[in-house]
Order: sequence, then C-alpha cells, then structure tokens
Amino acid sequence: MARSDFRFAHPLRVRWAEVDKQGIVFNGHYLLYFDVGITEYWRATGFPYPQGLLDQGSDLYVVKSTVEYHRSAEYDDELEVCVRVARIGRSSMNFAIEIHRDADHLVSGEVIYVNADPATRTSAPVPAALRERIAALEGRDPSQ
Amino acid sequence: MARSDFRFAHPLRVRWAEVDKQGIVFNGHYLLYFDVGITEYWRATGFPYPQGLLDQGSDLYVVKSTVEYHRSAEYDDELEVCVRVARIGRSSMNFAIEIHRDADHLVSGEVIYVNADPATRTSAPVPAALRERIAALEGRDPSQ
Amino acid sequence: MARSDFRFAHPLRVRWAEVDKQGIVFNGHYLLYFDVGITEYWRATGFPYPQGLLDQGSDLYVVKSTVEYHRSAEYDDELEVCVRVARIGRSSMNFAIEIHRDADHLVSGEVIYVNADPATRTSAPVPAALRERIAALEGRDPSQ
Amino acid sequence: MARSDFRFAHPLRVRWAEVDKQGIVFNGHYLLYFDVGITEYWRATGFPYPQGLLDQGSDLYVVKSTVEYHRSAEYDDELEVCVRVARIGRSSMNFAIEIHRDADHLVSGEVIYVNADPATRTSAPVPAALRERIAALEGRDPSQ
Repeated sequence: MARSDFRFAHPLRVRWAEVDKQGIVFNGHYLLYFDVGITEYWRATGFPYPQGLLDQGSDLYVVKSTVEYHRSAEYDDELEVCVRVARIGRSSMNFAIEIHRDADHLVSGEVIYVNADPATRTSAPVPAALRERIAALEGRDPSQ
Repeated sequence: MARSDFRFAHPLRVRWAEVDKQGIVFNGHYLLYFDVGITEYWRATGFPYPQGLLDQGSDLYVVKSTVEYHRSAEYDDELEVCVRVARIGRSSMNFAIEIHRDADHLVSGEVIYVNADPATRTSAPVPAALRERIAALEGRDPSQ
Repeated sequence: MARSDFRFAHPLRVRWAEVDKQGIVFNGHYLLYFDVGITEYWRATGFPYPQGLLDQGSDLYVVKSTVEYHRSAEYDDELEVCVRVARIGRSSMNFAIEIHRDADHLVSGEVIYVNADPATRTSAPVPAALRERIAALEGRDPSQ
Repeated sequence: MARSDFRFAHPLRVRWAEVDKQGIVFNGHYLLYFDVGITEYWRATGFPYPQGLLDQGSDLYVVKSTVEYHRSAEYDDELEVCVRVARIGRSSMNFAIEIHRDADHLVSGEVIYVNADPATRTSAPVPAALRERIAALEGRDPSQ
C-alpha cells in the first residue's frame, strides 16, 4: 500500500526513553505509536476518544493487534503514523496503520476493535454516525 | 492450546504504571510482557539474551508480533507468561505466547524472529546448538 | 545509610525495554522502580495499595520525588529496591529508597506523600493503624 | 517563578498509556516529559542531544532529579514543558523545569547534570561554547 493511500497521518518524534540498547525503538512501543495515531484519527472524525465515542453509544475494546517490522526507527526520528479504517463489520472495526520516515516505510500494522454498548459491555453494532464520519474522512465506505 | 502445553512459564505481577484509566493493562504493554517471557526462556536454554546467543553466532530481529486479547489483566494481578518455540525454519523462529491468570487465559500472541549473522546483519541459518537446546527444553523438535 | 538499615527490600530485574541507547536504565524509570518497591512495602504492612489503605480511610498523593544517581543499572541486573518510612508527620509520609546491586549502591531517593481523606480529597491526619503497622515493620516509630 | 520567566517551552499532549487508574499521569512519567523538554532545549541551542554536545566535547550524566507535584495532568491534556538553565557551575548544569496547562502550574522540577569528557568519562569543565549559546538563549548568563 502506498503512503498516498492514507488520508490521515500524525507526526511523532521518537523519544530517548523509547529507544533500546541497540539504538532502535523497542518493538513493543510501536503499539503505543499506533494508539497515538488512532487517538488523533478519532479527533479528526469529530468524535474524540473516549468521550466523543461514548456520546455516540460506542465503547471500543481492542481484540487483536499486529505489527510487522520492516526497518527500524531510531532516536529523534520524525515519523509519520498513517492511519485508516480498512473495514467496518457489524460490530468490528479494522484500523490499518503504517509508520513512515520520509521515503522509508518502517512498520505496518493492524488494530482490530470490537464495538460494545457502554452500558452492557457486550458487542453491539457500530453506530451509523461513526460509519458516516469515517466514510467521509476516508472518501470511501469501509462498511461495504 | 491448553496451559499444560507449555513447558516454560514466567511469573509477572502487573505494575501500577502499566494499567490505564479503564483499570486494565494498556494493550501495548503485553508486548513488553512477551519480551520479558522470551528473555527468561533464553535464560532457561542456557543461552541468555543477547550475549549467550551472540556467542553462538546468532543475532535476532523481530519481524512480526501479534497479540490477541481475550480478557483483561488488572493492577496487581499475578500473571504467568507461557512461552514456547512453535516452529524453527531455516532462518526464522516463531514463539507462541500465552498469558494466564490462574484458570483464566487472558492473552495469546506470537513473536517471529529472523536469525541474522552478527557480523553481516543478514539472515543466516539458525545455529544447530540453538535448535538442539530448544528441542531439549520443549521435548519435541520445532525444526521439523 | 547502610544497606542494613533497611528492613524491607524487594528484588527486581532490569527489563530490556527499560534500558536506553547508552546501555543503562533511563533516568526516569527509577521512579517506576520506587513505585514497585513502595507497593510491595504496603503489602508487607498488611494494607495493600490502594484498597487496604482506602479501607483505613487513607488516600495517598505524591507531592515530591527525588532521585540521586550514583552508578548506573544495566540490562538484566538483579536489583534490590530497599524501602523504609523515614518520617511520618501529621498528614505526610516520607519514604526513603535505595537501589542496590550486590555491594554497589546505585541510587538513592525520596518519595513524599500527603495523606488525604478519600471522600473529601483534602489532607487529613495519617490514621493511627498505619502508624502502628509501619512502626512494627520498621522496629522504630517514624511518627516521632 | 512565573511562566513568563521561561524563554523556552515545548508543547506535549498526554498519551493514553501515560495515564493511570486514577485518571492522572503516573508520577514517574514527568521525568520522561522533562527529558523531552530538555532534548528540545538542546535542539534550540544548536547543539542537539547527544551528537551536537559530543561534538563540543560534552557528555552529560544526570546526577539528581526532583519533581514537585502541585496539580495532576490528565489524559489528552495539552501541556507546556518550560525549560531553562538555572545555573552552570564548573562541571555541572542545573535545569529548572515547569509544566503548565493553560493558566495552571502543574509540576515543578529540577534536573542536575554533570558534564564529562566523552573519552575519559570523568567530570570536566562545561565547554565555553555551551555556556555562550545557553547565555544567548536565556538572555542572561547562568555561569555567573
């Protein structure tokens, strides 16, 4: 997938404490970067996490995360965390993520959420308002 | 996979700083727990990470991590990080991981490494000494 | 202060993700170690944090932390986090902390808490039950 | 000290993973924020950490950190990390730090470094070039 396939990206600079003894970002910290990117994606939809989503009756739980490491990010690197919603099912949402540093594609990943009813904490259909805002932001409808 | 299918497990207590506002362990921190478990697994093989492996001509790079979240770990929980080598290919090693809390199976995951030559940093066959020690620890040969 | 002046110590092994590019524990992570040590100290008193304290009407807030770095801890080091209550004032508690690695004294520190009423969240006298248990554990009375 | 006494400030947004079960930033993470602020301060001097300093013959080691907590930062807060060099001694540098959120002064702190010769790793006078750039950035001379 080309960098240009993402309509949303968030800049992020690697901190000293995130780099390990090999001089590269510790492998687990990319899930932290994914989370920051997804938080900013929600802000861009107009439903900031978590209150904006709760107001729509949506409580999200991560059910699966995947990270593929192509090249290493290093201390002080200026990264772009590219985020898009690849697919929305009945009660699930799949985020596709890529981390780029200039022309280098460093990391790919996926984070799958299940949508729950905040009151019952059981899975529930993704609200129509979320589907619409995401479709508008993406310029395509991930619900289909 | 039953808890009993793992010959190696490492105990770990959830720290206050690892728990988020929802009162559960932040989703990204499980990769930190996986890393602690794999470190202790290497110690159990007699090749402690990283020097024991480098001495065998083995430098490991993570190429893919997967985490599946079934139930949440909470503050002060005493967890077991169960680790086994599921498969060794020519130059790759797949670790299967599970996190349990008493009878509850909380998290499953996989971490795939590529074995590299420490000098050239290019992929190289997994050394025979590693294969043997792992087969001994596992009671089966993941190379087959 | 000699290592022997502490009646309570908790063992802790340095994790890969806690070590920075210089091969030493990132300076901020010692406050995480202090927190783990203090958590275990509370468990030893019989009032585990936070519920055991809340049950006594005690809610604790950190007001000041100090860390003095003498020598560096490194990856995989087995540390001892030594914890004692140096002083209890009307509504404050001062923890003195030291981190040792075998005969080496690596880090000294202090964490000062104010005791609050859980209902009003305003400062309140440290409950007598806490003072007594701490005096028993310390073998001296930090309230004096 | 008034917010206006700082000539340098760096914006920083609180991440989900940095907030604990009480809904506030974990007390130890402020040293991470201090470190980010100091890193950006060095960039502003024209001697980016660590290479720009090493090029001047300066290797810095933290010897003491202090954090005073006045009010809590919460998830998604937009903070300002205000940094200034309060004093430069023969071989030491004292950074004063404050964290503000709009009109609220949340945290004060200090980080003291010793300057070392990169080759011998023993303490050495702070290079004149650093003193000059810092004096220029501060609009006063912390060496006096």
